[in-house]
Amino acid sequence: MAAIVAANVGDAVAYGADRWTREMEDAFREAFGEQATAYAMFNGSGANVVGLGLMLRAFDGVICAASAHINGHEAGAAERVLGTKLLTVETDDGKLRPEHVLGQLEALGNEHHSQPRVVSISQVTECGTLYTADEVAALGEVAHAHGLYLHMDGARLANAAAEAGSSLRALTTDAGVDVLSFGGTKNGALAAEALVILRPELDPAALFLRKQGMQLASKMRFVAAQLTALLQNDLWHRNAVHANAMAHRLADGIAGVWPLRYPVQSNAVFPILTEKALTELQTRQLFSIWHRPTSVIRLVTSFDTTPDDVDTLITDLLSLR
Amino acid sequence: MAAIVAANVGDAVAYGADRWTREMEDAFREAFGEQATAYAMFNGSGANVVGLGLMLRAFDGVICAASAHINGHEAGAAERVLGTKLLTVETDDGKLRPEHVLGQLEALGNEHHSQPRVVSISQVTECGTLYTADEVAALGEVAHAHGLYLHMDGARLANAAAEAGSSLRALTTDAGVDVLSFGGTKNGALAAEALVILRPELDPAALFLRKQGMQLASKMRFVAAQLTALLQNDLWHRNAVHANAMAHRLADGIAGVWPLRYPVQSNAVFPILTEKALTELQTRQLFSIWHRPTSVIRLVTSFDTTPDDVDTLITDLLSLR
Amino acid sequence: MAAIVAANVGDAVAYGADRWTREMEDAFREAFGEQATAYAMFNGSGANVVGLGLMLRAFDGVICAASAHINGHEAGAAERVLGTKLLTVETDDGKLRPEHVLGQLEALGNEHHSQPRVVSISQVTECGTLYTADEVAALGEVAHAHGLYLHMDGARLANAAAEAGSSLRALTTDAGVDVLSFGGTKNGALAAEALVILRPELDPAALFLRKQGMQLASKMRFVAAQLTALLQNDLWHRNAVHANAMAHRLADGIAGVWPLRYPVQSNAVFPILTEKALTELQTRQLFSIWHRPTSVIRLVTSFDTTPDDVDTLITDLLSLR
Amino acid sequence: MAAIVAANVGDAVAYGADRWTREMEDAFREAFGEQATAYAMFNGSGANVVGLGLMLRAFDGVICAASAHINGHEAGAAERVLGTKLLTVETDDGKLRPEHVLGQLEALGNEHHSQPRVVSISQVTECGTLYTADEVAALGEVAHAHGLYLHMDGARLANAAAEAGSSLRALTTDAGVDVLSFGGTKNGALAAEALVILRPELDPAALFLRKQGMQLASKMRFVAAQLTALLQNDLWHRNAVHANAMAHRLADGIAGVWPLRYPVQSNAVFPILTEKALTELQTRQLFSIWHRPTSVIRLVTSFDTTPDDVDTLITDLLSLR
Repeated sequence: MAAIVAANVGDAVAYGADRWTREMEDAFREAFGEQATAYAMFNGSGANVVGLGLMLRAFDGVICAASAHINGHEAGAAERVLGTKLLTVETDDGKLRPEHVLGQLEALGNEHHSQPRVVSISQVTECGTLYTADEVAALGEVAHAHGLYLHMDGARLANAAAEAGSSLRALTTDAGVDVLSFGGTKNGALAAEALVILRPELDPAALFLRKQGMQLASKMRFVAAQLTALLQNDLWHRNAVHANAMAHRLADGIAGVWPLRYPVQSNAVFPILTEKALTELQTRQLFSIWHRPTSVIRLVTSFDTTPDDVDTLITDLLSLR
Repeated sequence: MAAIVAANVGDAVAYGADRWTREMEDAFREAFGEQATAYAMFNGSGANVVGLGLMLRAFDGVICAASAHINGHEAGAAERVLGTKLLTVETDDGKLRPEHVLGQLEALGNEHHSQPRVVSISQVTECGTLYTADEVAALGEVAHAHGLYLHMDGARLANAAAEAGSSLRALTTDAGVDVLSFGGTKNGALAAEALVILRPELDPAALFLRKQGMQLASKMRFVAAQLTALLQNDLWHRNAVHANAMAHRLADGIAGVWPLRYPVQSNAVFPILTEKALTELQTRQLFSIWHRPTSVIRLVTSFDTTPDDVDTLITDLLSLR
Repeated sequence: MAAIVAANVGDAVAYGADRWTREMEDAFREAFGEQATAYAMFNGSGANVVGLGLMLRAFDGVICAASAHINGHEAGAAERVLGTKLLTVETDDGKLRPEHVLGQLEALGNEHHSQPRVVSISQVTECGTLYTADEVAALGEVAHAHGLYLHMDGARLANAAAEAGSSLRALTTDAGVDVLSFGGTKNGALAAEALVILRPELDPAALFLRKQGMQLASKMRFVAAQLTALLQNDLWHRNAVHANAMAHRLADGIAGVWPLRYPVQSNAVFPILTEKALTELQTRQLFSIWHRPTSVIRLVTSFDTTPDDVDTLITDLLSLR
Repeated sequence: MAAIVAANVGDAVAYGADRWTREMEDAFREAFGEQATAYAMFNGSGANVVGLGLMLRAFDGVICAASAHINGHEAGAAERVLGTKLLTVETDDGKLRPEHVLGQLEALGNEHHSQPRVVSISQVTECGTLYTADEVAALGEVAHAHGLYLHMDGARLANAAAEAGSSLRALTTDAGVDVLSFGGTKNGALAAEALVILRPELDPAALFLRKQGMQLASKMRFVAAQLTALLQNDLWHRNAVHANAMAHRLADGIAGVWPLRYPVQSNAVFPILTEKALTELQTRQLFSIWHRPTSVIRLVTSFDTTPDDVDTLITDLLSLR
């Protein structure tokens, strides 16, 4: 917020030819390496669609977990805007593995099938689970070995890096990611995500696809400034460390009472309640149901969740046992 | 073929305003009921895409089996041309069941998800399995109860009706199907499929979507004549009965030696070989592999398969044991 | 800006279920009438694409001036995202007239052609010219008489209303506009536009198309608050009156020296320079060239343009004579 | 027709792996040069859409005459299936000229605009006018000089070559055409067009786009055989020479009575009638109106038009004076 207010001085050239956007680009190069180019976007769906679009020909598909945000929570934007087919794989924990990718490659070269072109993973996954740098690298290797690209939906990359205790770069550039959606909004920004291109040959189409994808801000400095603020002085890290800590506090607080559907590896907790407890909790709290038949709910902490918030929720949850 | 040659007399008005097309339309009305309107198409993908397009809004999806032809064998045409998301369900035998449909309906009304709008089934399925009239009706009921439509990819509807000993109408119109792709090519035509609309309110868009979908034949009489020939004098039935009989002859011939992956309910047989037998057979015959890890192959008989063709194949298969 | 900062208090439910969004919706109802529903968007292309999408079937086209922003300045977003054809009409001054619409209607009912479905006008036009309420109403009448809708790209509707001395409603709801893009960004917002639906039957698809069009802000209060601020206390009007006044000041200052390509009816001035003057001016100022062969440039004033800014530019322009 | 019947012997591998398709491919290589690859399609819209798709990225547009078939007579298929924008140019006679192309190139590199990528011309044009080999070559040069491709919609290329007294190759390969739609249906086939790729680097995507574009015939031999028959023994040439001769006979027969809108350069004649004559003729003949306000009608002759057909029409037309 402070960054936005600070950017509100005088006039600036529209559409990104301003110094705030230059600063943002520098900040991403510093964080992800010299070859990184970054483009401010309004939201995560926009970053994902534009980023995938850089890699796809008209007859290409995207291998992803069935639980991926691009598959289940973007209202079919990928199909509508890109005309692509998502080649979904059922997973237990939201994590794609090399064998999942290999299982889709029989279609290569067969005109009757969408051609696998991109492997897309979410870091952290929609289940809150984390890919280690080695796991990302293994996916990058299998993708590249078969002429595919590796895309990361990093709406919560910050949480992943904070949890793994690694740099942003170690989980992306160094692990073979070609195109990244870098999440800002879930990490404290008002509305700011970035498309980060780590393979320069994919860069030239980005300006055109961003504009066509309705993600070009005329007053771009206000979007760019948010991203710069997150990257500078490790604000992204502090925010993510805090959010993750709150999730662990929550998990610890209900341990032994409510089992968890997935391990806590970021800022999300998935308690398995009973149907009765779930119904009762709905009268007290607003939360999202992950899987109703098994009474799994999804609780997500954020940069501004307080220990008190968590403790109140713990008390509620414990009282339902 | 005879029908095409017979249609090659004199001039005719282009784009379907000719007597051959009128005859075809009459033939479909006779077979499917008074409300049926029929549109000649070049191939099955065309009929499916145009037919689905009649029912879909920009944010709608199609519930179908993961094995459906529209999902796995049309090169992403539905996603590219319609921009739709296929909401796929894993099935054991290619058959969608009411509980599969119900499992997808939680998305209704939630803007984050593609909206289920159509239930699409293949009759017979890609596994060669058959929906009974009652099973189709049950799907129609659940679809209609929730404001969805029922679409049938009937590329091999003739085989289904022949096997079930029922009329075309009993498996479609009378069972609640709203839009049908009627297959001609697999049943003896050179290149002719029909989109058959059984719910009149969906009809007005058909001419426009067919043209836009690049399925409008300028010399339509040659396509229409093929379809009329199949429907008249029960040629469709004779062809399908024969093809099915050849499949059963094949299945009977290898019974006790090679188990089958799916029951034979039409003109397809799916023997489970060994890896060694599969490899050996490839040196003798051209066939398609259904699932390589389990050595399942797919053998399809047709209107012109002879008992000798089948017996030769049986001999080959038996020799591989 | 103040509004954004004010909205940054405490937590709010995501995706628009918050009190800032409710206030915005109320503000639009007050300005445009009881039936108006409003949806916050990130930018004008987003509002246009989503708004047009409400009205278009897969085989429909949009009648618009060739100079329209949706045709020339949105990088083909309408074709890509909506798959629609823009049925463009050459105009002298950017203004569509009833006879232009009538000239496109021969295609109605002919399957070989995209079907005209929407008349889209820009208020003010890309040439800075203004439609009177009567002119809008005349277009609405011809559109509605033939089953078409009337869409207004109102990126600068505020400037139009300020210039016409009329209310927002008089130029839209009361003149038969069905769907409106209401511009905030050019009128002082950081990044906020609104899709305003004036024909309730078109409303149900809006949430879905906004999400699919990648225009759904998770922290919507920050977008909504900007729009509310513009609508409350007539801020939109003050900003637009000022911008228009600056344009007139500029036009007056160069009168008699540089002729204008279009009359000044809002916040844009289009001087016809000489090639030499244009080249010389490029060394001193950053501006956009409207039509190079005739040396027409485009100068746009804004809510924060000062009289001094204008006078400096006048001095520059006069010195080039 | 004879070719189709001849192809109806025994079984053949589906989807083009048959000897009839091989023969067709050879025939196209012989006619268009060694680098030519050819793909059978069902109709001209299919060939155009698939062919353009080979060259277009998601943000690209196609420069064409406003009168082009792809713009005005394919129901928006290019926009729907390819998501492309057609960058139309008004012409007097349907012929695009290098200056038209140059006038569209200002958009190159500007993210706000669709990027010109293909120049598409119709040979002969929808006005029946002919591009000379030199004119085609001039367009090819300007296109290639700016990184664009040259596409030819050759639905009536045969008529053009016959009229010009040149080979098919002289008007295409040798003149710089990169991708060609070769028309068969208007030249005597039942339903057969070919996509001919003259620039090998564009070839790899063809199989995939044809399948996705719903133009893949399973029993391809019947389509291929038609094309081979046209190319062998110069049948294409005899048919086209005859059709053109009939058009000239018609034009000569009404010379001095009814002026022509365009010169006769192929198989189309565009007499300028009076409104009264047009109305009267409608009671006697079925024909298409080209431009109602000026009473221009469009008369097209074909491979099977007889001199008697023409003379009857001449008599009718002369009687209307």
